[in-house]
Amino acid sequence: MPPTRSTSPAASQEDVRRHNLGSLLRLLHDRGATSRADLTSVTGLNRSTVKALTADLVAARLVRESAPVGRGGAGRPSITVEPESDGVYVLALDIGVEHLTGVRVGLGGVVLDRRELPQSIGDYAVPRTLTRLERLTRGLLAGAPESGVCVGIGVGVCGVVSSDDGLVRFAPNLGWVDVPLRDLLADRLATSLPIVLGNDGDLGAMAEHLRGVAQGLSDIVYVSGEVGIGGGIILGGHALRGTGGYAGEIGHMSVDPRGKLCRCGRRGCWETEISDQAVLAATNAPAGTPLADVLQAYVDGERWAQAGMRRVGRFLGIGVANLVNLLNPELIVFGGAVRHIYTATEPLVREALETALAAPAQQVGLAVAGLGDDSVAVGAAELSFARLLGDPLGALAVLTPPLAARA
Amino acid sequence: MPPTRSTSPAASQEDVRRHNLGSLLRLLHDRGATSRADLTSVTGLNRSTVKALTADLVAARLVRESAPVGRGGAGRPSITVEPESDGVYVLALDIGVEHLTGVRVGLGGVVLDRRELPQSIGDYAVPRTLTRLERLTRGLLAGAPESGVCVGIGVGVCGVVSSDDGLVRFAPNLGWVDVPLRDLLADRLATSLPIVLGNDGDLGAMAEHLRGVAQGLSDIVYVSGEVGIGGGIILGGHALRGTGGYAGEIGHMSVDPRGKLCRCGRRGCWETEISDQAVLAATNAPAGTPLADVLQAYVDGERWAQAGMRRVGRFLGIGVANLVNLLNPELIVFGGAVRHIYTATEPLVREALETALAAPAQQVGLAVAGLGDDSVAVGAAELSFARLLGDPLGALAVLTPPLAARA
Repeated sequence: MPPTRSTSPAASQEDVRRHNLGSLLRLLHDRGATSRADLTSVTGLNRSTVKALTADLVAARLVRESAPVGRGGAGRPSITVEPESDGVYVLALDIGVEHLTGVRVGLGGVVLDRRELPQSIGDYAVPRTLTRLERLTRGLLAGAPESGVCVGIGVGVCGVVSSDDGLVRFAPNLGWVDVPLRDLLADRLATSLPIVLGNDGDLGAMAEHLRGVAQGLSDIVYVSGEVGIGGGIILGGHALRGTGGYAGEIGHMSVDPRGKLCRCGRRGCWETEISDQAVLAATNAPAGTPLADVLQAYVDGERWAQAGMRRVGRFLGIGVANLVNLLNPELIVFGGAVRHIYTATEPLVREALETALAAPAQQVGLAVAGLGDDSVAVGAAELSFARLLGDPLGALAVLTPPLAARA
Repeated sequence: MPPTRSTSPAASQEDVRRHNLGSLLRLLHDRGATSRADLTSVTGLNRSTVKALTADLVAARLVRESAPVGRGGAGRPSITVEPESDGVYVLALDIGVEHLTGVRVGLGGVVLDRRELPQSIGDYAVPRTLTRLERLTRGLLAGAPESGVCVGIGVGVCGVVSSDDGLVRFAPNLGWVDVPLRDLLADRLATSLPIVLGNDGDLGAMAEHLRGVAQGLSDIVYVSGEVGIGGGIILGGHALRGTGGYAGEIGHMSVDPRGKLCRCGRRGCWETEISDQAVLAATNAPAGTPLADVLQAYVDGERWAQAGMRRVGRFLGIGVANLVNLLNPELIVFGGAVRHIYTATEPLVREALETALAAPAQQVGLAVAGLGDDSVAVGAAELSFARLLGDPLGALAVLTPPLAARA
């Protein structure tokens, strides 16, 4: 019989080391530069273990150590450890209805580079989208340092995504049904880098929870979108997934049984009343008018924009009050174009919120996304970093050669 | 310095024993009669420990042991252990808008006795309600065996409840605001038994999850009510609480901005369209017509009931589709009077469900409450058993004298 390696002390020690390396790198990724003394107290590991693990991460070029800047104070100053944000990065793509966005995000969650291509409404053929995503990707890689290591690609999509098989199941506003985006993108980029997909709302919620306005909160709803309204729900500190991972489609909550026909086939979905297209329709603005112009006209008191925008603001508030009554969140975060609509109509939204039940209404805050236009992309980057943070050295080992994506 | 009892080995062993006693009793409460062999394999404790713990529970008259009925098979037959359902019980009260229900529930979740008083709509003055609850309670206690031990009282209320301080914060359909129900009831019953309050929707969801149609499922929504529509949401196997415990007010999801004014102050809440009062209003049935008569007339094809009931069924379906899109549950359970409305209009509800997003719509089942009219009361009983199951001997010790409630 072969030796039972899986239960031998040696294998077990290796498991512990891998786990500890991951925990340490996750901590540095989440917090940024941290002293070795703080790493010791936060992880509960002893000083020599932290020193040895840090040395491993330094050798793998995932973190670097530096002498502390400050002087004086009690005791010997502790070495500072920080993630190699410039050298270790992911690419994150956000496939929206009005924009394709690509960002290069360094370890530690630092946005290093950002590119955007406008989308033409209705022009979402998959081959064309792949061409544009390739352009974004190659541009981001061209701007990356030669010595850098790309550890993965994360993609946020405005639709229902099946993460396990890399499929976009249904993206009504792109007209996509069962598009095997992960494999198509890997083929097009001729890369063996790991590619992971997520729903844009879920990713935005995660990003705002980790690095935006909802840091430290347990119960949040993220509302965003342009043409379509998506969302992400985090309850008790965990993403609300539902039985199949499809939860959080807040844009398809019907708020008006006699309302407009939605692209999903239902009538009066929230997104038919509060999206940027709804703003144009409600105000009878000429086709092609930028959303910002309509909102500015409303805020400036221009007459043509008043009634329509009041309608949009009231419906935004009705949906917000529904979410408050159903979910009792601490914070509702408005992202994407919705944040501009919320900003313009905030008094109407707050007025509608007062009609929610008193107890949950008193407990909720309303805020715009702290990461602005980049919530989804930053969330996609987090998704893409997960493999590295779970097993830092193992993930790097299978990346060889690190620059496959540039071949 | 005093000895540090809390960390001494003796104290720690006592903690372990208390924990194990609780786990064992919880297991027997949830599963009913179980062989000692199965208790050993399920808990992972060794046989002698299970035997000793069981002996403690027998001595406390919480469980009893009996020889197995079956014979033959491999090995020595194992002793069967079962909860003392007749001897150890709680009282559970369900304060609804149309009925007050009281049940006596034995350890193991067995409903031993049930009493009901009809409520007159609009006649919910707190003193009068307390008088009626006292009548129910004394009736249930009079029917209990002399040797029995009542370990607590659980109360379900159709409103927003603050469990920690025993307050009914807001029950719009009873007209109650900040009613200190726990203390009022303890005074009225002159009891020192622990009294716990819960929201009816949350309790119904818990009961269906533990003992009804949703056993073994992780993601469910329970929809119920008579005049008001309440609900309870369980996601990932845990009750959805929200930041302040007020989540799940699904009846106050607005589905029609031009709809009827709700008692909560909002317009077009789901409960204004699908409650039993909505059925009477939609069909123009004479005041006082029993709900069952209207539903029967609709099912029988009587003309006067058709248009109105179709409206109710469509709105029931719209709300169901909203919940499916938002939460992606495995099962939606209809309880209370809503289950009769659902049964009558099921084809319309399923038609509306088809307008939800395909992926979550394919994954959801619809079912009526397995516990019928008793979901809320059974849930209140579970709430009331929690203290005993957490620390069986400790909870019994502070109950002395056990029959204080009959004094």
